[in-house]
Amino acid sequence: MVSKNQKKLIKSLKQKKYRKQHNLFVAEGKKVIKEFIDAGLTVHSLFAQETSFFEVESSLFFSVTAEELKQITFLTTPQNALGIFHIPTALDTTDNGLILALDDVRDPGNLGTIIRLCDWFGVTDLVCSDQTVDCYNPKVIQATMGSITRVNVTYVNLQEFLEAKSSAGIVSYGTFMDGVSIYETTLPSQGIIVMGNEANGISAEIEALVTKRLAIPQFGQGQKTESLNVATATAIILSEFLRR
Amino acid sequence: MVSKNQKKLIKSLKQKKYRKQHNLFVAEGKKVIKEFIDAGLTVHSLFAQETSFFEVESSLFFSVTAEELKQITFLTTPQNALGIFHIPTALDTTDNGLILALDDVRDPGNLGTIIRLCDWFGVTDLVCSDQTVDCYNPKVIQATMGSITRVNVTYVNLQEFLEAKSSAGIVSYGTFMDGVSIYETTLPSQGIIVMGNEANGISAEIEALVTKRLAIPQFGQGQKTESLNVATATAIILSEFLRR
Repeated sequence: MVSKNQKKLIKSLKQKKYRKQHNLFVAEGKKVIKEFIDAGLTVHSLFAQETSFFEVESSLFFSVTAEELKQITFLTTPQNALGIFHIPTALDTTDNGLILALDDVRDPGNLGTIIRLCDWFGVTDLVCSDQTVDCYNPKVIQATMGSITRVNVTYVNLQEFLEAKSSAGIVSYGTFMDGVSIYETTLPSQGIIVMGNEANGISAEIEALVTKRLAIPQFGQGQKTESLNVATATAIILSEFLRR
Repeated sequence: MVSKNQKKLIKSLKQKKYRKQHNLFVAEGKKVIKEFIDAGLTVHSLFAQETSFFEVESSLFFSVTAEELKQITFLTTPQNALGIFHIPTALDTTDNGLILALDDVRDPGNLGTIIRLCDWFGVTDLVCSDQTVDCYNPKVIQATMGSITRVNVTYVNLQEFLEAKSSAGIVSYGTFMDGVSIYETTLPSQGIIVMGNEANGISAEIEALVTKRLAIPQFGQGQKTESLNVATATAIILSEFLRR
């Protein structure tokens, strides 16, 4: 049974404003929900057709019909379960290892894919500019497939963040058309890799703070390709930084 | 002005069945349309609010209002122009260089991204299993950003294709959990790289035909990551094959 107030709450969590206000987010599907529970996130409430799967306090569990799930889902095809979780506090970023920084990535699918890539490559700190799409956006949560539980995502004023790191002697990397080939330069195991916005790349203010200009070489004849999608470019760059 | 018959034709081209029947496909937006015209594709008809942009016979051009474009578009936000093009005949695949083969990739966004990657890395032959999503699907066309004009996409019985290539001595590569690290093996400039389905990876029948088993190493602690998205995995593998 889903109450009117619960329906209202769930619906509101589609919007960043209400996610911030309630400090809650929605995850759908047994598998994704289980990853959040296993990662130690605090459950606010769970809605599912069966009980046995989840080990949560019975007061937080609400048994629902398929019809009710259809009414509360954010997905086109409803999953078998919907969970509301408390948004965990982001940790401080470490100064060891690689940090990935996003300058205004706007597409939820791209952010989700990038979080999965961070998890795959063991990059535990993902720093996002304030204008980057919210990582608790339902589309991001579904695209990460649980990877978000293993990546520390923080939202910052990226300019101030890079200035502070630069003062601390930490080198930052960005890709530009005129950069040095990633295949022909020594890439370290520490530093900040900056990826830009889907349409505009890295902004001028952030570009001014990037220490080393890199490029992903293009091999096609004519070099007419539009540029790579930000998620595939991130995949190539992380692979190249980590491969040694 | 868009006639009733034209509206009906455009709407039908959303479906593969009618694209095959008419041998036509739809592309939207000036930039994408221009890429197809520049690449020498034959225009069937063009619908736009202004004329000056396209150099096509006046009999093929139909001036439309914003309201009419809204009625015919496949996109949520209509572009400034919609074009119908004749589907070009796929060329034979070459036996030189790298060929990318897809074993039942189903998501149009993934196929579009993979076509862009082929273009970026100069892989001119993309061979798709018959069950792979149609490359003239409107979502694929929009995701390729014109790259499809520079990549020869063919649909084949992938099993027969790989058997024939294998008999001709051409080596094929696929990624599996138990493969040899792509970072620690010599990758040639000729061969076939097979990528699998989003949910199931490479099918058993195709796996049996793969000559060399590769793996993309995972760096995260715990190795819990779900696996990489097929488009990002393709990005990493193509980069690794081409980097030398």
